[in-house]
Amino acid sequence: MATEPSAKVIDGKAVAKQIREEISAEVSKLKDAIGVVPGLAVILVGDRKDSATYVRNKKIACESVGITSFEVHLPEDASEQEVLKYISDFNDDPSVHGILVQLPLPSHMNEQTILNAVTIEKDVDGFHPLNIGRLAMRGRDPLFVPCTPKGCIELLHRYGVEIKGKRAVVIGRSNIVGMPAALLLQREDATVSIVHSRTKNPEEITRQADIIISAVGQPNMVRGSWIKPGAVIIDVGINPVEDASSPRGYRLVGDICYEEACKVAAAVTPVPGGVGPMTIAMLLSNTLSSAKRAHNFQ
Amino acid sequence: MATEPSAKVIDGKAVAKQIREEISAEVSKLKDAIGVVPGLAVILVGDRKDSATYVRNKKIACESVGITSFEVHLPEDASEQEVLKYISDFNDDPSVHGILVQLPLPSHMNEQTILNAVTIEKDVDGFHPLNIGRLAMRGRDPLFVPCTPKGCIELLHRYGVEIKGKRAVVIGRSNIVGMPAALLLQREDATVSIVHSRTKNPEEITRQADIIISAVGQPNMVRGSWIKPGAVIIDVGINPVEDASSPRGYRLVGDICYEEACKVAAAVTPVPGGVGPMTIAMLLSNTLSSAKRAHNFQ
Repeated sequence: MATEPSAKVIDGKAVAKQIREEISAEVSKLKDAIGVVPGLAVILVGDRKDSATYVRNKKIACESVGITSFEVHLPEDASEQEVLKYISDFNDDPSVHGILVQLPLPSHMNEQTILNAVTIEKDVDGFHPLNIGRLAMRGRDPLFVPCTPKGCIELLHRYGVEIKGKRAVVIGRSNIVGMPAALLLQREDATVSIVHSRTKNPEEITRQADIIISAVGQPNMVRGSWIKPGAVIIDVGINPVEDASSPRGYRLVGDICYEEACKVAAAVTPVPGGVGPMTIAMLLSNTLSSAKRAHNFQ
Repeated sequence: MATEPSAKVIDGKAVAKQIREEISAEVSKLKDAIGVVPGLAVILVGDRKDSATYVRNKKIACESVGITSFEVHLPEDASEQEVLKYISDFNDDPSVHGILVQLPLPSHMNEQTILNAVTIEKDVDGFHPLNIGRLAMRGRDPLFVPCTPKGCIELLHRYGVEIKGKRAVVIGRSNIVGMPAALLLQREDATVSIVHSRTKNPEEITRQADIIISAVGQPNMVRGSWIKPGAVIIDVGINPVEDASSPRGYRLVGDICYEEACKVAAAVTPVPGGVGPMTIAMLLSNTLSSAKRAHNFQ
């Protein structure tokens, strides 16, 4: 009887849980040693339900590891000035070590102006161009690495996947995932190619990869034929597709055709339960690092 | 009789000359319209002969297009404080639109501290991490693009080489050439792979490229067998190799084996006379842009 080859499942949920426990222990150590409790401030503007859910999840995650969370909720019609005032106060507040502005902002606000107002020492999202520049440059170090790509690399590390000298393909080149993921892989000495919407032969290039990180938001785009046997796949996509059999009428799938990938790849992240849980864990990790750095605590 | 296929030679010297003429005309226009003359300040520390030559060449190039050059020459044992003082003065001086610190600095100085002191509005070298970050990010624009990689892309543009959708391989990942060249190609919608010292199969990857930019400093490393027929090659390497027949005892060659490349590629830059002359032309171009930006002149 022929056995189906089957990829190892990279369990982001379990890894994220373990990381949170580690963070929790470090938060206690920091408090016991020097009386400092890390603090994360989240600014939410408007009434988007999804944004409110994200903010609530971040708050719960903070509490679960002993990080103090500060929340500001402004109405949809708040002025840019008001938001900037809160950012400025948080910048000056020594009990706040990370500041996060929940996106998207209402359309009457200039996102770039607002994000640039967050001091780089508290930019736990890692999206400030100065952080991205340092991430790109050899011999420089960013203060923070963006959470989702950091979570992707952390999964590779925790599963003992060698990166150095490997061919890596990143699918998607967004500022928040694809581009920084490519820079991170390159920092670890992978040979990196970035595939995007203008790429003419994405399948052929992707098939050369030992490591694939996909972040495009196209359900099941990467088929089994795109995958080199034995590749390791990190799927950042979280795409709703119709599913009449689900009580919600839809289910979530990644960019990677999971069933096909399982037959070819050595390891693959599921959706949900792969990269998703890692993002918040990395946000907590960045907040903890920030507090340690602010107090020169090793 | 079989004819040898022969690549078009990309004449960087001629293109650079044309660009300088264009800059010269624009400098005159700026002066006539609003009485502003662009100014470039160069700081040289110590007595390295090669550095002195570079600085002199920059000065001559400035004069040839009507850009005012300011030169400060400090002794080898000058203090970091002195250098920082000059930078600070040039930062404040409205007649200076670009500031360039000639590298390498003496070993007792912290290069990063000194380069970071140049205000981003006058960072005509484009090496500030904030500029690099903006170069990496979609929807953001750097104030300046580093001169050598900018010169590479300018050569592709002037020779009508399409970049969008093409496979591009950048060999080398330095902060001053390889990395920003890759970011520039990506901004123009190429599918970019970066090959470096840890890459296991550089020949195989390079052979997939429609466009090759090489900046590693290894004489004749890229052989004909590395090149896809019809590829366009930009060779940034300038490597001295022994040559008893030369009066100087050496001659300059690129990273690309030029004779072999000529038989396979569609077009190739020679060394010398390819990218080299473009670097100073782009420095002049950055200085002009800076002056126009400072005075809101279109």
